[in-house]
Amino acid sequence: MDELDLQQFAVGIDLALEAKELAESGGHGPIPGVLSEITDEEGIKITRLQVQNDEGARALGKMPGHYVTFEVPDLRKLDTGLQDRVATKLAQEFESFLARIGIGKKANILIVGLGNWNVTPDALGPLVVENVMVTRHFFELMPDQVSPGYRSVSAVAPGVLGITGIESSEIVQGIVERAKPEVIIAIDALASKALERVNTTIQIADTGIHPGSGIGNKRRGLTKEILGIPVIAIGVPTVVYASTIVNNTIELMRNHVQAQNGNTDHIFGLINKMEEKDRLQLVREALGPLGHDLLVTPKEIDQFIEDIANIIASGLNAGLHDAVDTSNVAAYTH
Amino acid sequence: MDELDLQQFAVGIDLALEAKELAESGGHGPIPGVLSEITDEEGIKITRLQVQNDEGARALGKMPGHYVTFEVPDLRKLDTGLQDRVATKLAQEFESFLARIGIGKKANILIVGLGNWNVTPDALGPLVVENVMVTRHFFELMPDQVSPGYRSVSAVAPGVLGITGIESSEIVQGIVERAKPEVIIAIDALASKALERVNTTIQIADTGIHPGSGIGNKRRGLTKEILGIPVIAIGVPTVVYASTIVNNTIELMRNHVQAQNGNTDHIFGLINKMEEKDRLQLVREALGPLGHDLLVTPKEIDQFIEDIANIIASGLNAGLHDAVDTSNVAAYTH
Amino acid sequence: MDELDLQQFAVGIDLALEAKELAESGGHGPIPGVLSEITDEEGIKITRLQVQNDEGARALGKMPGHYVTFEVPDLRKLDTGLQDRVATKLAQEFESFLARIGIGKKANILIVGLGNWNVTPDALGPLVVENVMVTRHFFELMPDQVSPGYRSVSAVAPGVLGITGIESSEIVQGIVERAKPEVIIAIDALASKALERVNTTIQIADTGIHPGSGIGNKRRGLTKEILGIPVIAIGVPTVVYASTIVNNTIELMRNHVQAQNGNTDHIFGLINKMEEKDRLQLVREALGPLGHDLLVTPKEIDQFIEDIANIIASGLNAGLHDAVDTSNVAAYTH
Amino acid sequence: MDELDLQQFAVGIDLALEAKELAESGGHGPIPGVLSEITDEEGIKITRLQVQNDEGARALGKMPGHYVTFEVPDLRKLDTGLQDRVATKLAQEFESFLARIGIGKKANILIVGLGNWNVTPDALGPLVVENVMVTRHFFELMPDQVSPGYRSVSAVAPGVLGITGIESSEIVQGIVERAKPEVIIAIDALASKALERVNTTIQIADTGIHPGSGIGNKRRGLTKEILGIPVIAIGVPTVVYASTIVNNTIELMRNHVQAQNGNTDHIFGLINKMEEKDRLQLVREALGPLGHDLLVTPKEIDQFIEDIANIIASGLNAGLHDAVDTSNVAAYTH
Repeated sequence: MDELDLQQFAVGIDLALEAKELAESGGHGPIPGVLSEITDEEGIKITRLQVQNDEGARALGKMPGHYVTFEVPDLRKLDTGLQDRVATKLAQEFESFLARIGIGKKANILIVGLGNWNVTPDALGPLVVENVMVTRHFFELMPDQVSPGYRSVSAVAPGVLGITGIESSEIVQGIVERAKPEVIIAIDALASKALERVNTTIQIADTGIHPGSGIGNKRRGLTKEILGIPVIAIGVPTVVYASTIVNNTIELMRNHVQAQNGNTDHIFGLINKMEEKDRLQLVREALGPLGHDLLVTPKEIDQFIEDIANIIASGLNAGLHDAVDTSNVAAYTH
Repeated sequence: MDELDLQQFAVGIDLALEAKELAESGGHGPIPGVLSEITDEEGIKITRLQVQNDEGARALGKMPGHYVTFEVPDLRKLDTGLQDRVATKLAQEFESFLARIGIGKKANILIVGLGNWNVTPDALGPLVVENVMVTRHFFELMPDQVSPGYRSVSAVAPGVLGITGIESSEIVQGIVERAKPEVIIAIDALASKALERVNTTIQIADTGIHPGSGIGNKRRGLTKEILGIPVIAIGVPTVVYASTIVNNTIELMRNHVQAQNGNTDHIFGLINKMEEKDRLQLVREALGPLGHDLLVTPKEIDQFIEDIANIIASGLNAGLHDAVDTSNVAAYTH
Repeated sequence: MDELDLQQFAVGIDLALEAKELAESGGHGPIPGVLSEITDEEGIKITRLQVQNDEGARALGKMPGHYVTFEVPDLRKLDTGLQDRVATKLAQEFESFLARIGIGKKANILIVGLGNWNVTPDALGPLVVENVMVTRHFFELMPDQVSPGYRSVSAVAPGVLGITGIESSEIVQGIVERAKPEVIIAIDALASKALERVNTTIQIADTGIHPGSGIGNKRRGLTKEILGIPVIAIGVPTVVYASTIVNNTIELMRNHVQAQNGNTDHIFGLINKMEEKDRLQLVREALGPLGHDLLVTPKEIDQFIEDIANIIASGLNAGLHDAVDTSNVAAYTH
Repeated sequence: MDELDLQQFAVGIDLALEAKELAESGGHGPIPGVLSEITDEEGIKITRLQVQNDEGARALGKMPGHYVTFEVPDLRKLDTGLQDRVATKLAQEFESFLARIGIGKKANILIVGLGNWNVTPDALGPLVVENVMVTRHFFELMPDQVSPGYRSVSAVAPGVLGITGIESSEIVQGIVERAKPEVIIAIDALASKALERVNTTIQIADTGIHPGSGIGNKRRGLTKEILGIPVIAIGVPTVVYASTIVNNTIELMRNHVQAQNGNTDHIFGLINKMEEKDRLQLVREALGPLGHDLLVTPKEIDQFIEDIANIIASGLNAGLHDAVDTSNVAAYTH
């Protein structure tokens, strides 16, 4: 299946969940080739999507594979209890992902933190790298002395093209050839269509990182095809296009008026009848010439990024090492 | 004139320019009691507003006084030549403001950097404080040895309520009583109605800082009434409400459709006829219940804040000290 | 008693413990007017000194008052269990200090973090301020809603002369006049005579901060005489003069040779017989002309400063609020 | 020649200059196989050492090759004019080094910033990487549009073992295999024997980075043998062992006493006659058991590191690109 074909369908849609919402917005019921299952407990909504085949992939503009999305609106409330619960559930999910693709308890793992550490909303990956427990050097230097319950984990933040002059995927490829991990877990900041998902949503997928995804506009991906080993991708939307805020809000306005029994045709005119894509196109045209269609991020991004990086690092520490569990996970993270 | 009265008219409007635009949006021509003059050279548009009396103040929701606004869309393009030109023009403007309120070349000045250094879009004030040249201690410790062409300048960043537990205006008041400056120049990050003004606009006003303005929601102001000395305020919008992005963009969409000879009534329905205030109200209602009406900032905020803080610090260094001018201003700034 | 007199005796000696060691180095037994008591449990050595009168003050070059010093050599080992134990003992000590000077459970407290946040070994005070729980604004804004077990605490980092142009003591004095605390707790980075004390030692004293103490060379102090309220000082040595490293090491070399039954006169010549002060003088002369007598700090200073700031902030949070205790103190600190 | 042999002679001596001083301290005149030439102008002392053969290498404990050392005592004085002059001279030196090993004007260069960005005195390499101009991506993506006078430069900071779990040399080797540079310029923080050299000295060598050198205790080097391409090493001492401060100062004390016509045998006893190595051994024994032999750095390390990183980055920008020269070099560096 041609990757570029997919790109045409899903430019700028990083979350499988949003791709599915968009695909469903026509209203023709379930999408063939896409399974989905939703659970919601204690403020953590988990959506498990499986894109089963090319038909589903084409409909969603997403590669076949598993996509698990955590939506936790209260993550913005600085609730440390909730943060711990999310980390614990993430740990379980990481274990499931590794088991599903046949990666054993002893397999070496390389964690890759994509993004630019000088741009706060793009610094998620590098921050996770700073906070995970790395152990590979102990296995290399004193293999007999490593306690049971740990595996070999290494971690790098390859930087972005503007800082290094080298594609991050090329740097990772070079490191993979030397350090010989059996699987990569890559963390990246994403763009969302909806402001409320920014910094409250975490997506895990076994399909790797594809060109053009994330904030940093990679031109080459991190995928099994390129690297020769499976790539699990963890993504968190930290920015949103101004245009999608507008488009999304017009939808909210229609719902709001409808809920008050207002005549939406009367109030919104033709806008009311437009398909979402066409309306977004109109918004972009209005914003475009002035260069206004910026990526924006919430004012409190510094705190949000730090919190989510800690949650993901805690989840990885507990999910990757049997000796680390939900009761002691905090001690291993900064 | 009652300050609270003004608040009712202009909640959340920090820029006098935007207050004027809103007041004029009814379309009744020039506003009595408000003079304005616009120049535009080399990509720097300067609007000089004078709110002359209570009538103008009531119409704009802004205290009587002078408001000078720099709009420099290309400030986001990292053009160091343009940055230097803006700093030079700011320096001239600071000199004019001081002269207009009768502050001499030798007067002691206290620079106050408001805001929270841990929140990037609110860190403008503290960053300016880190970059201005302070000289007061030389005048105190070795007055005979200070070269001509300098005046006594001190600078503080009083922090925010959540960090100190004390209102920043109380801290400043205490410092004023001990350090005895003759005028205060206060720098604060603001909210704008328009995304394109964020990090491209600088406002200087001789009316001080008023409660509720800026990002940090002060409950007490920094004004001549409270502090006993004149307060010149420098403000830069660094955030914008999601709701105003939406409202503003709907306006842009109407203009866009109109420019293409579209029937805006047909396309936008009642929305087309709504007054801006009512439409904003509808947007807020739609966003509000979900807690979506966040303040947002461009993704590149780290770099923007650093650049504008440097421009303002350079402008202050050149404007406050005769010995520092446009050719050597960079040497005095980090 | 004249403060300047004291200065002559104790230039550069910030720790009362070291002043006592120096005073005793002559070898004439206990110093009149100075009581001392030492406990040592679980790796935390606590020395309680009381300078009872002018005679003791003159002998030590330290103001009359109580000085409690924690020495914890293993603090450099990043042992989080030990860090928690130190925080707990600090909390008890803070409570004792407040009780001894008659400060009640409800008294308002202002925490002052002295030092320069841009100079890592001098950033201790500002870092503690960032990490303590401030509550004063809740008492001011919603006094009825504050849970029992808390008191009003505010916190400021006044900066240093080179950044603000104003003496930190003047800034604090201004804030005291506005915020009306009943006692000040001031945190400052100190110089030590001994490299092994750097970042492993914490001194608490009820005598305030005196001119010339600490790293930043204050010219005015923070004392009850100046501010009108008691000042408890927390000091941690984070730097050491190159000259005192040398002088101290020569002493260690003599002990080392003596322990091996070496003839120290033979090996060290006249050096062996010199009084410590004279030897230090010789070291300084040798280093001085070349400007080599720098203040130095361990390579790992970034981590050390962060750890000790957290320990002190945890100790303050637990010591100042009855509702915070040793089991939940971590939750209140970053 | 066996590399481990060298290690025995020169444990902890990173500067060739200091190795030569030590080798000469026996006082037997010029060292066979080592050429040296010294110039000193405008406060910049430049020593050019050439280790010509194995005999010289064995005597110095340094690989055969060219070592150029800048000593600029006034670098600590924050003199921007001097900083510019040093950057200019560095640029010339870089050009000479490249020319001498036959690297042409068009050759691709990879800059490697070794060290730990979380440890201020070890952050020099990563800071230089942040400040150099990278251009490789322009040559890759739009080769026709690159202006003349530039070459392809990339830059990475591979991190340290404790953060990544992977040897930095392995990471670099992987990147070299992908990015195919023709020469590496590696920047590393070093240890010095003398406090006055810390942050005032810059060494350039064409012999690469060897195991055990620098602050971070590499176990594998960056050398032509390992990487297959030449490696130019830029090193700046940023730390010094407490023991060498002491040993060095005893020497200064002897010189000081001698200069005053004192009888050094009488005053210093046997110490006076000891060879430097034996005296250092005694110092280490005295400090050792207590774990006092720390690496220390000047208190002002934050500012020093930033300044030197800027100087080196400016020197590289001007030295590597013909289009960048001494008059415009600042514009290319942050």
